[in-house]
Amino acid sequence: MPDPHGEAPSARLARVRVVLCRPTHPGNIGAAARAIKTMGLSQLVLVEPKLYPHPEATARASGAVDVLEAARVCPTLDDALAGCVLAIGLSARHRELVGKVQSARDAAVEAIGFAGSGDVAVVFGTETYGLTNDEVGRCQNLAFIPANPDYGSLNLAAAVQVVAYELRMAAGLAGGYAAVTYAPAAQDDIAGLHAHAARTLADLGFFNPARPRRLLPRLRRLFARTRLEHEEVNILRGILTSVDEALKRARGR
Amino acid sequence: MPDPHGEAPSARLARVRVVLCRPTHPGNIGAAARAIKTMGLSQLVLVEPKLYPHPEATARASGAVDVLEAARVCPTLDDALAGCVLAIGLSARHRELVGKVQSARDAAVEAIGFAGSGDVAVVFGTETYGLTNDEVGRCQNLAFIPANPDYGSLNLAAAVQVVAYELRMAAGLAGGYAAVTYAPAAQDDIAGLHAHAARTLADLGFFNPARPRRLLPRLRRLFARTRLEHEEVNILRGILTSVDEALKRARGR
Repeated sequence: MPDPHGEAPSARLARVRVVLCRPTHPGNIGAAARAIKTMGLSQLVLVEPKLYPHPEATARASGAVDVLEAARVCPTLDDALAGCVLAIGLSARHRELVGKVQSARDAAVEAIGFAGSGDVAVVFGTETYGLTNDEVGRCQNLAFIPANPDYGSLNLAAAVQVVAYELRMAAGLAGGYAAVTYAPAAQDDIAGLHAHAARTLADLGFFNPARPRRLLPRLRRLFARTRLEHEEVNILRGILTSVDEALKRARGR
Repeated sequence: MPDPHGEAPSARLARVRVVLCRPTHPGNIGAAARAIKTMGLSQLVLVEPKLYPHPEATARASGAVDVLEAARVCPTLDDALAGCVLAIGLSARHRELVGKVQSARDAAVEAIGFAGSGDVAVVFGTETYGLTNDEVGRCQNLAFIPANPDYGSLNLAAAVQVVAYELRMAAGLAGGYAAVTYAPAAQDDIAGLHAHAARTLADLGFFNPARPRRLLPRLRRLFARTRLEHEEVNILRGILTSVDEALKRARGR
């Protein structure tokens, strides 16, 4: 049992085995390999795959051929689960004699918790019928992906993608790219912009300082919502200046 | 604008358009149709699809051929977005000049909120390059699916599946099948079981009432964790009774 203290969240994802029981379409095996790699998982275990290896699996794996080729093939589910501290079976319908039923989101949180103590398995059945009762009986928990009650049949690799995604989220690896940060405008730059706008609008005759109504507060509100950047204030003042100059030229003529 | 009060959560899902920009593989169009139907969405919009309709799309749609056949084909993204109150672009990498960047989970919450006021679009780019800058510029928000920084390339339909799943979760439709409920054992049934076990174990010579050690408390702890059902208590007492009778027979011999 590895020490759970101080390890990286990715270490827990590395301890999750994605077990596919008797998959019939090699394309789904490849797509599952791709799905788990995109979420930072790496262990793919195949119990009695109908066709593996297969060129269609390789094609659908795309950039995850390494995960596909490293897949472990087992003759039975017991072999696939050997050494695991928790096995969670995925099922689109309820099955009897199961320890605990939970949503994929809750199952992922529990799986990541147990992955602090050892390997954890998430177990998927065949494309058509799912897990057998015997296979379900080897899992402590049963998990479902919330779905349309009128049509809840997710593609196998799509179900693997959702579960792998929830495992990544549960591991605390919810980050993505950060927004590019632009320099925000200083308050006095913004005050300068509004003063400039008031002068130019008055000069244009659009704004009458003697009868201001609510024009300037409304403009301030609009720009307050957008959180102006430094560069944007420069652009807007440039526009105002070009208006100022056009007015000067027009009067000079 | 429909009144958001009192409407079913599924009504908001019905107002989400899944927009695929220039998809190149017809299989992905079919798989996307299936993905959105499994999550209770129904609007698929295709902008300049390379091959549609196509037998491969139909095959991969499985039980969602209705959603596939109802897909609206648009010549431009502007046509696809017409009438939407919010457009969220999905991108695996950051793009400049975007209003707001958020995770798929946060984006789904915002989308379901806006879907109270009108149609909302989630916009996906081509398989290879994603959205163009021009397409991104037509979206108010940019969303990412948290992914492996070393390989974050989700299949198009897999990305649609994750986003559709998050939309369903955000709509409050997180339910699945309920666990079968068994009748729990009454406290006195459980006390009777433990008393019976103590007698039988003493009879077996496994337990010495004069030197009880911690055997009985440990057994009680074990069974407390499993939350015994009524029928299970009967089974366990049946086992104890058969041991009692075997001991009697052995002594009668």
